[in-house]
Amino acid sequence: MPRMTEPRRKRGTERTSNRGPAAIPQLPLRRVTNPYPPMAMLSADQIEAIHQASMHILENFGIEVMSPRALSLFESAGAAVDHASANVRIDRGMIEDVLKTTRSNYTLTPRNPAYTVHLGGNTINFTLVAGPPNVHDMERGRRAGNLRDYSDLVRLAQHFNCIHMLGNQVCAPVELPANSRHLDTYLANLTLTDKSFHVSAIGRGRALDGIEMMAISRGLTLDQMRDDPGITTIISVNSPRRFDEMMAEGLMTMAEFGQSVAVTPFTLMGAMSPVTLAGALAQQNAEALFGVVLTQLVRPGAPVMYGAFTSNVDMKSGAPAFGTPENTKANIASGQLARRYGLPYRTTPGSASNAADAQGAYETLMALWGAVLGHGNLVYHAAGWQEGGLTASFEKFIIDVEMIQHMMEFLRPIEVNEAELAVEALGAVPTGGHFFGEPHTLERYATAFYQPMLSNWQNYEAWQEAGGLDTTARATRLWKKALEDYVEPVMDIAVREALEAYVAKRKEAIGQGEP
Amino acid sequence: MPRMTEPRRKRGTERTSNRGPAAIPQLPLRRVTNPYPPMAMLSADQIEAIHQASMHILENFGIEVMSPRALSLFESAGAAVDHASANVRIDRGMIEDVLKTTRSNYTLTPRNPAYTVHLGGNTINFTLVAGPPNVHDMERGRRAGNLRDYSDLVRLAQHFNCIHMLGNQVCAPVELPANSRHLDTYLANLTLTDKSFHVSAIGRGRALDGIEMMAISRGLTLDQMRDDPGITTIISVNSPRRFDEMMAEGLMTMAEFGQSVAVTPFTLMGAMSPVTLAGALAQQNAEALFGVVLTQLVRPGAPVMYGAFTSNVDMKSGAPAFGTPENTKANIASGQLARRYGLPYRTTPGSASNAADAQGAYETLMALWGAVLGHGNLVYHAAGWQEGGLTASFEKFIIDVEMIQHMMEFLRPIEVNEAELAVEALGAVPTGGHFFGEPHTLERYATAFYQPMLSNWQNYEAWQEAGGLDTTARATRLWKKALEDYVEPVMDIAVREALEAYVAKRKEAIGQGEP
Repeated sequence: MPRMTEPRRKRGTERTSNRGPAAIPQLPLRRVTNPYPPMAMLSADQIEAIHQASMHILENFGIEVMSPRALSLFESAGAAVDHASANVRIDRGMIEDVLKTTRSNYTLTPRNPAYTVHLGGNTINFTLVAGPPNVHDMERGRRAGNLRDYSDLVRLAQHFNCIHMLGNQVCAPVELPANSRHLDTYLANLTLTDKSFHVSAIGRGRALDGIEMMAISRGLTLDQMRDDPGITTIISVNSPRRFDEMMAEGLMTMAEFGQSVAVTPFTLMGAMSPVTLAGALAQQNAEALFGVVLTQLVRPGAPVMYGAFTSNVDMKSGAPAFGTPENTKANIASGQLARRYGLPYRTTPGSASNAADAQGAYETLMALWGAVLGHGNLVYHAAGWQEGGLTASFEKFIIDVEMIQHMMEFLRPIEVNEAELAVEALGAVPTGGHFFGEPHTLERYATAFYQPMLSNWQNYEAWQEAGGLDTTARATRLWKKALEDYVEPVMDIAVREALEAYVAKRKEAIGQGEP
Repeated sequence: MPRMTEPRRKRGTERTSNRGPAAIPQLPLRRVTNPYPPMAMLSADQIEAIHQASMHILENFGIEVMSPRALSLFESAGAAVDHASANVRIDRGMIEDVLKTTRSNYTLTPRNPAYTVHLGGNTINFTLVAGPPNVHDMERGRRAGNLRDYSDLVRLAQHFNCIHMLGNQVCAPVELPANSRHLDTYLANLTLTDKSFHVSAIGRGRALDGIEMMAISRGLTLDQMRDDPGITTIISVNSPRRFDEMMAEGLMTMAEFGQSVAVTPFTLMGAMSPVTLAGALAQQNAEALFGVVLTQLVRPGAPVMYGAFTSNVDMKSGAPAFGTPENTKANIASGQLARRYGLPYRTTPGSASNAADAQGAYETLMALWGAVLGHGNLVYHAAGWQEGGLTASFEKFIIDVEMIQHMMEFLRPIEVNEAELAVEALGAVPTGGHFFGEPHTLERYATAFYQPMLSNWQNYEAWQEAGGLDTTARATRLWKKALEDYVEPVMDIAVREALEAYVAKRKEAIGQGEP
């Protein structure tokens, strides 16, 4: 039997069972599927027109790829490459051919197979926010990202079952050296959680470190991982029409080792894209497909997603906006495009609100509905996103988890059968009576309805007596409680030592100038 | 030329043009249509099973109707009436026959025909909250409903174009005598706004007063109004399976005079209905159809809507909950049922939150999505609903208007054509460049995106510098500004005098004991 580390407990509290009476109620771990057909916002003709426009872009305008290795790959595959400008033009025939090797479904398996992420079909996965430089909570205010907050936020993601995987760096731990902090965050991801995560694919080194450390945690070789991926990354396109060297190298490294990539153009309408949705979608489609093609040139069959991030900017200030009506529509239409090519679909709900308040809730929920109606498979940044992605918020995380759970329950179809139709009970209760005491009710009431953790359903007087806390204040209590209840997943001590040794070795190498 | 009253100005301010630079940005008056197909949450077989269960209820268990006049009407039409228990059983043949005279589309015309409400098809109308005993705003706190707040809330409904009509009494003006306050509120509705409204149909007198006063305001006779309805009412069924005398009389009066009725069972799952959605929907369907049948027995062709209010209660306290996943599903499934019978559909978004906060936003928006995906034609209580309907909130009104406007913009389909695809602009902007200065952008940027009134898109520092107000605090500023900008619609002074005379005459009669 392998040696195990003791589960580490926060703040000296006793372990609180997740099922104990004092625990925060939450939905069980569930593979979420959308039983309803995806929303057909665009007609087949409209989809085709957008496809044609994107083919025109790829055939005539091309994409700049700031990577000699990528340029060679494209050239060998028959693309028109201009080395002086690093411009690559690919035609629809090549695209069609190359897309044949993509997969419509695949899985990402972390060290705990219970948290395997299924990408494709009608499965939906919700992930932790990624990338903010700052963190915020109502007690300590706004501050630069740091490893302590980083660790607490991934603990929260571990604690809540509806968070299916982590993103890439829930906040930037800025006190750590920029060129090696990815190692610290990977180690935190792998030890404080046993869920899958997004690696940073800014260059080959960061991607490869993520792949190697996931392989160590699973007890696999890199070769074994190649056919059984465990992680993914987001490749952000430098829209319009540019893949920079670091992103191109990251993409190719992930594909080379059989790990997943979500190619996501940064198409903010009015800034990096046309102000029109059709134009932004055409651009997004061209850029996403170009990145998808590159993954397949590196390794046919490499797991890859169609990523979409199309939203608009505030035309008065140029500031990005999220959860807008335009963003919501883009989330739905992009799903139609992804499905046209048989690719799993990554999408995002967001908000520009500076606070975990009503705007934060309604903007996020607008875009979340778009993600769900568009059959997003990977709903990135689904919990904790604030300030247009500049801050990871503890309270917003809780509000988002509550909204995700609402959506998960919404996605459970209505059952219609004799027992559910309750005709006998309907005849037994007298006119003007009530159903509280009916056997049909008593048999089902404990589990009949979704029980929220954050919503307050007290009457006004009882709510006032209990302090009259608004949603945001209640969210503060909940994340603190969740951190108290958090249990670190058990890890074989040899695995932990191997991971720590890997990090130490790589930090030394990076210190000596290795990438 | 008729004599006109001067527009009345609030608080001595000069009239602020709605188009002036200082005005709150808002969407123009628009007939809102849903261009997307309604969501098919239930299969045709499931709809049929619910229909069959509701037929079983109507044929075997019956509905109690506490009105001798209604019992006679049912008896004459061939229903099985038990006079001792006031129980009425109707069979599917009779229902099918009677439903033939209902209308799938009709209009309600107020004194300003620009605000004509189209009910049916894919048109959506949003209405002011109705019925709360209390009002709340962040400056003055919670208080009992009163005519001053009543007036301010209907002024807000007049000011915002996305509110298509008023409900029945946005709050109860409790300082006025209960038996005549409907006259004061009708007068306020008709003078402070020129939109349509819901009358109180608790008994014949209140309904008839509303019909007569709307007729006066339009310069029509009751006979002319009969074929050109101007108002509606909600008939709340005393679920399970009971229509009380006042509601039955109100329903029959409205139908007699050709005015619209939305028959709305009060099916809170777990309390007045089974805990199962299928059972609650079967009950709702039976009760709604029963009321619809009664309208047609009074007057074939009388305008009538299928109303739905199915939500769940908190099984720990019995308190009603809204905006739950179950409520959202019910809003969609109920639309499928309404369409099965070719009836316009009334639905509701709601929230149990005690504050205009994140919960208020996410619960309301969950149910609002249900209302929209379910193709609700009349979205009742759409703005201002707080505390499960016990309070009309000024701040929540503003948050709701913002969410409604988001939805209205979401419902504008994506245009795909050469100009929108922007291929030329996509070729003109260099890789890594931006679209800010492109002619394609400059021609469109001013109107390209929805401009919110409440959402704050400033960066964190600018937001902090401006006071760091959260959404709720900003909503306070907005309702105050809207009341300052509000302009009372012009009314012919003779009409106003006629309305006032009607109110005076009726108050005297009611004082002398008339109903």
